[in-house]
Amino acid sequence: MDNKQLQDLVEQMTLEEKIAQLLQLTAHLHEGTDNEGQVTGPMEEMGITEPMVTASGSVLGLSGAQAVIDVQQSYLSKSRLGIPLLFMADVVHGFKTIFPIPLAIGCSWNTELAEKSAEIAAKESAVSGIHVTFAPMVDLVRDPRWGRVMETTGEDPYLNSLFARAFVRGYQGDNLKDNPDRLAACVKHFAAYGAPEGGRDYNTVNMSERQLREQYLPAYRAALDEGCEMVMTSFNTVDGIPATGNEKLLRGILRDEWDFDGVVISDWASIREMIAHGAAEDDCEAAYRAIRAGVDIEMMTPCYVNHLPQLIESGRVDEALIDEAVLRILHLKNKLGLFENPLRAADPEREREVIFCEEHRNVSYELAAKSSVLLKNNGLLPLHSDANIALIGPFAQSDDILGWWSCVGAKEDAVQLGTSLKERLSGGQLSIAEGCGIDSITPEQLEGALETARSADIIVLALGEESAMSGEGGSRTDIRLPEAQIELVKQLKSLGKPIAAVIFNGRPLDLHGIFEEADAVLEAWFPGSEGGAAIADILIGRVNPSARLTMSFPQSVGQVPVYYNHFNTGRPMDPRKTEERYVSKYIDSPNEPLLPFGFGLSYTTFEYSDLTISSSEMKADQTLTVQVSVKNTGDREGVETVQLYIRDVTGEVVRPLRELKGFEKLSLAPGESGTATFTLTEEQLRYYHSDLSFGSDPGTFQVFVGPNSRDTLEQSFKLI
Amino acid sequence: MDNKQLQDLVEQMTLEEKIAQLLQLTAHLHEGTDNEGQVTGPMEEMGITEPMVTASGSVLGLSGAQAVIDVQQSYLSKSRLGIPLLFMADVVHGFKTIFPIPLAIGCSWNTELAEKSAEIAAKESAVSGIHVTFAPMVDLVRDPRWGRVMETTGEDPYLNSLFARAFVRGYQGDNLKDNPDRLAACVKHFAAYGAPEGGRDYNTVNMSERQLREQYLPAYRAALDEGCEMVMTSFNTVDGIPATGNEKLLRGILRDEWDFDGVVISDWASIREMIAHGAAEDDCEAAYRAIRAGVDIEMMTPCYVNHLPQLIESGRVDEALIDEAVLRILHLKNKLGLFENPLRAADPEREREVIFCEEHRNVSYELAAKSSVLLKNNGLLPLHSDANIALIGPFAQSDDILGWWSCVGAKEDAVQLGTSLKERLSGGQLSIAEGCGIDSITPEQLEGALETARSADIIVLALGEESAMSGEGGSRTDIRLPEAQIELVKQLKSLGKPIAAVIFNGRPLDLHGIFEEADAVLEAWFPGSEGGAAIADILIGRVNPSARLTMSFPQSVGQVPVYYNHFNTGRPMDPRKTEERYVSKYIDSPNEPLLPFGFGLSYTTFEYSDLTISSSEMKADQTLTVQVSVKNTGDREGVETVQLYIRDVTGEVVRPLRELKGFEKLSLAPGESGTATFTLTEEQLRYYHSDLSFGSDPGTFQVFVGPNSRDTLEQSFKLI
Repeated sequence: MDNKQLQDLVEQMTLEEKIAQLLQLTAHLHEGTDNEGQVTGPMEEMGITEPMVTASGSVLGLSGAQAVIDVQQSYLSKSRLGIPLLFMADVVHGFKTIFPIPLAIGCSWNTELAEKSAEIAAKESAVSGIHVTFAPMVDLVRDPRWGRVMETTGEDPYLNSLFARAFVRGYQGDNLKDNPDRLAACVKHFAAYGAPEGGRDYNTVNMSERQLREQYLPAYRAALDEGCEMVMTSFNTVDGIPATGNEKLLRGILRDEWDFDGVVISDWASIREMIAHGAAEDDCEAAYRAIRAGVDIEMMTPCYVNHLPQLIESGRVDEALIDEAVLRILHLKNKLGLFENPLRAADPEREREVIFCEEHRNVSYELAAKSSVLLKNNGLLPLHSDANIALIGPFAQSDDILGWWSCVGAKEDAVQLGTSLKERLSGGQLSIAEGCGIDSITPEQLEGALETARSADIIVLALGEESAMSGEGGSRTDIRLPEAQIELVKQLKSLGKPIAAVIFNGRPLDLHGIFEEADAVLEAWFPGSEGGAAIADILIGRVNPSARLTMSFPQSVGQVPVYYNHFNTGRPMDPRKTEERYVSKYIDSPNEPLLPFGFGLSYTTFEYSDLTISSSEMKADQTLTVQVSVKNTGDREGVETVQLYIRDVTGEVVRPLRELKGFEKLSLAPGESGTATFTLTEEQLRYYHSDLSFGSDPGTFQVFVGPNSRDTLEQSFKLI
Repeated sequence: MDNKQLQDLVEQMTLEEKIAQLLQLTAHLHEGTDNEGQVTGPMEEMGITEPMVTASGSVLGLSGAQAVIDVQQSYLSKSRLGIPLLFMADVVHGFKTIFPIPLAIGCSWNTELAEKSAEIAAKESAVSGIHVTFAPMVDLVRDPRWGRVMETTGEDPYLNSLFARAFVRGYQGDNLKDNPDRLAACVKHFAAYGAPEGGRDYNTVNMSERQLREQYLPAYRAALDEGCEMVMTSFNTVDGIPATGNEKLLRGILRDEWDFDGVVISDWASIREMIAHGAAEDDCEAAYRAIRAGVDIEMMTPCYVNHLPQLIESGRVDEALIDEAVLRILHLKNKLGLFENPLRAADPEREREVIFCEEHRNVSYELAAKSSVLLKNNGLLPLHSDANIALIGPFAQSDDILGWWSCVGAKEDAVQLGTSLKERLSGGQLSIAEGCGIDSITPEQLEGALETARSADIIVLALGEESAMSGEGGSRTDIRLPEAQIELVKQLKSLGKPIAAVIFNGRPLDLHGIFEEADAVLEAWFPGSEGGAAIADILIGRVNPSARLTMSFPQSVGQVPVYYNHFNTGRPMDPRKTEERYVSKYIDSPNEPLLPFGFGLSYTTFEYSDLTISSSEMKADQTLTVQVSVKNTGDREGVETVQLYIRDVTGEVVRPLRELKGFEKLSLAPGESGTATFTLTEEQLRYYHSDLSFGSDPGTFQVFVGPNSRDTLEQSFKLI
């Protein structure tokens, strides 16, 4: 259909039909599903009726080609105007083929693979009948207590923006109508959901508008610049106003400034939650604030459907607002080709072929192999394939390696570490012991572990958080490994044998109790369906690790927030004078994190030299070339992620000590040297001033290049 | 002198003389001090010369009547225009008579005593030659990691504002000229120094302007409304601009909006520190930003004196700015009566009489007795005077009970707990053991403690932080008692005897390792010169504790920030359904602090009933009367601090769950009932809206009255 036809369609719709398009409910309420349209329980209490369900314009969380086909056909058979249902779902890091959690994907610094993972997730979901995914989640995060840090690519606005674009490209492709194997993407959570106070999920967010624009908004904007079709509002307040009713954010910034004309959807029940927030007295006021702010679709509460009619009748809300919202939704349905092909890619036969196919699992393997970060290595890794190894810990043989938000993914499909490691040892021996539960340990478990370890040469520990310890609603105040696991480490350490630790988890941890104790530490995150294979290949050296942290690992929770792009303060600590009192420091901890942003080791080593910059001065219309030589000084081929940071030494507003501006991957054979080349433009030097104007200032800039945000070579130039 | 004379004086001054008035250096550089005007070391490196010292208009940190007299006389003998020197110093919680730390004073909820303490501090300093104190510090705080929480009265803007006013009244009195025993006050640190990221001193501060105005600015404003003569800028950035160069803050809010016409002084070196911040390229630019922003006096760096001349010559800075600043400084000197009486109250003879006199120490005792908070009591306290007691711990016999910022106070004058308790036991026995150091424990110490404890009936533990673990530069990531002390508790606990713990410290602590283990816990803070006597009197029941926390005590550092006046969120946790996942909570900790704002026990008990409100509706020009009955249901006389909170249920901007709006102290005999009466006006219902307008909205308000911010009775009314 063209615009005119869509507009005509809106004109044919009754107010009731229009408002029904603005409602989204879970799938199980629809005819054709198991529940056969029964509205009971909380839904009924909430005021949701069967006619609402029958009329509502989109559906949440249904997948399976046949089920979707059934619901769509039943729905259309009763639809006066033949407007198809839109099927949306949370496809976050894979559908059935589960990829590593997004925080791990971030650590790959590999946007091509990220894009590929989204393309695969789209294809598997599309053939299962899904049209829209509630992804990517691009919230910037600085607080590892928050459970949903596992769902983002990290603490850096530049890197998050690159990944936001990659995911959107991967999900959407070039043309949703011509390619039904792609999904419309929905960037979330707008805005600043990643900054909840105390790291507690759904908690208050407060920051200056300048910081919001500089750090938190760029990744959402990047997704939209890439053509992302939808935006989801966040649960939190932003400066005291819930995002879902925040006119300044949604209408001011998103619609007016950024010209976003796609669909805005609330998060689950977040319109009604404005009452609990204390921003609306009742459902009617909640509906009023949300529609005025610019929310098109209400998810899982009936404030719109029950109250928009009276709000329009009373003249408080202009029906034109509803028409706009409906038109945007119909536009999306049309872009997806649903009017012509309401079943789109849903196809039980292709479903069987496509889903969890080898090709997809291979990409999951590759991403896992490229997103596990080697945090420490005293030479113990890689293991010799003829080693006598004791693999001990709750993740030694565990299927809980998919991570949160892997709803359709099946744990039983997950390749487990113990199995994979066993397959790969030729000549060596592998014995496995659980050692402890996630947060419990029995004398028998401990004795079993000690016995297993005594007969081995090397102990490989497989430790971590269970997946429910991160993800939505998974905030922790204590970000150490659970006490039982620390006790296990302590006991095994007393044997005096070399220890390598693999950690499975969804957030940067305080690694006390394992980092010092182990000779090598590999951060596996939740590595997804093929996790065990990828980790085993890293352990035995078939894969040389290359990933880099995209969130700082704090010394302890008492240091949070700790992130690389912080300010210098007026009294920075001189690391040579740690005893000075009146400087910005803690009396009981370093200022710096245990492991900085960008950090990650390889089985080979790289040496940086000859950082050059093409000129010591730059005019606004010129570019500078920054080059550095990197030599593989070890005895294995390896991939180095060369990172470029700048610092604007003096600003009208203080600038961070380092800001990532680029990176380049070099693959180098032993002894080989390569050159990383970066181009700097004036555009990269801009920032938000106190009046919110965005521009650069003349003055001195430092340029840092290195393997992470800490260990860098340095040059400088002047912008004139 | 009158205004005209002061203005004439400015006109007679050379530019150099004027700029010299804007410089403040430490006293020891002046002739008449030990150093005899030698400029050496860092001062010299910094570009400070002897003529600068000789000419500078104010002096920092000198006290002692004779020394001040000598310096003033020598200075005036060389002064062309006879403008006297101004002597300033950090007199924070007492001069020689040290009062409890301000956080403890806050816990007294006793503004009369707070005022009295400031009056005494003023008198002792004034006779020692001081004219201005860098107090009160009124920064609102929510993060116990920050060392300087000891210096503020707590987390509540209303209570902090009352104390700000009380301190200003106490320091300044009604008339500085007629009463030379008072000091000019300097409120600090403007602005929001109490919100450093990660609780790390001097660190970045970022928040919305709305939150800044609502939570952080009121106490500064209250001090100024009370007539406070000076303002000190803070070390931190506020939204990326150092406070010391922040035009919006200093000129916009402070001068233009609030009409402040007193003197603004930088904090120590904070003008030059703009270079380290990255907000000024060099001293010259730092001077430029500071003078433009409205800083009159530069403390301890020579940016003004070295660069203002060229800035004026080049026309970048208008000389009128300098004239204004100088006039403000001369006004202050004149208000203090220095032109007529440059020695003011400095008097070696009165110094001997006044300082640390019994009357002063009695007030310190009273404040200590009224600011120690009883956190837990299973009936063990008060102790019987014939009990057989083992007093154990590093504070059992310690003089480190004055707290940070007690520069002139002498530890040897501090009344120690062991000594006081011994004096008070009639018939009972007291044996004392150190048990451990602050953060070390030896087998001998432990054995001594166990032996001492074995022969006693009751163990009284005296634990805590040494004073250097809080205060400026005293930030901690771990806010538990030091490990050695927790170990001591554990060992003593194994004896199975009743344990009372007294904690000396400068911040809310994570009380793991002591709170559960002890039968009674008394928070003594750093109680000042008479601390031991006051604590001993509480322990044996001569004093019935009445203080209430003004900062929440977190469950752990992982819960920080935790404060009472937070928002509800859109998904508040239902305490009856703690297993629900998708609510705002931690999976490993309660949301609520261990001990809430306003909490404190007594040796008697109080029962609240019959909360009434004079009407269920209120018009803007009406007032409401809120009343509650309180009965002393125990067997001792006691003082109850009845607290009134409100919640604006729905706002254009979300409002806190509770906001303190008033309190009343009732002193009740056993069995006696009393009534607390509060008046509510529309003014108390106002808040900052999203457009920064300040006003109330019609709607429902909840009213809570109780002994703390958690355990309250509830009513509601409508503002119509």
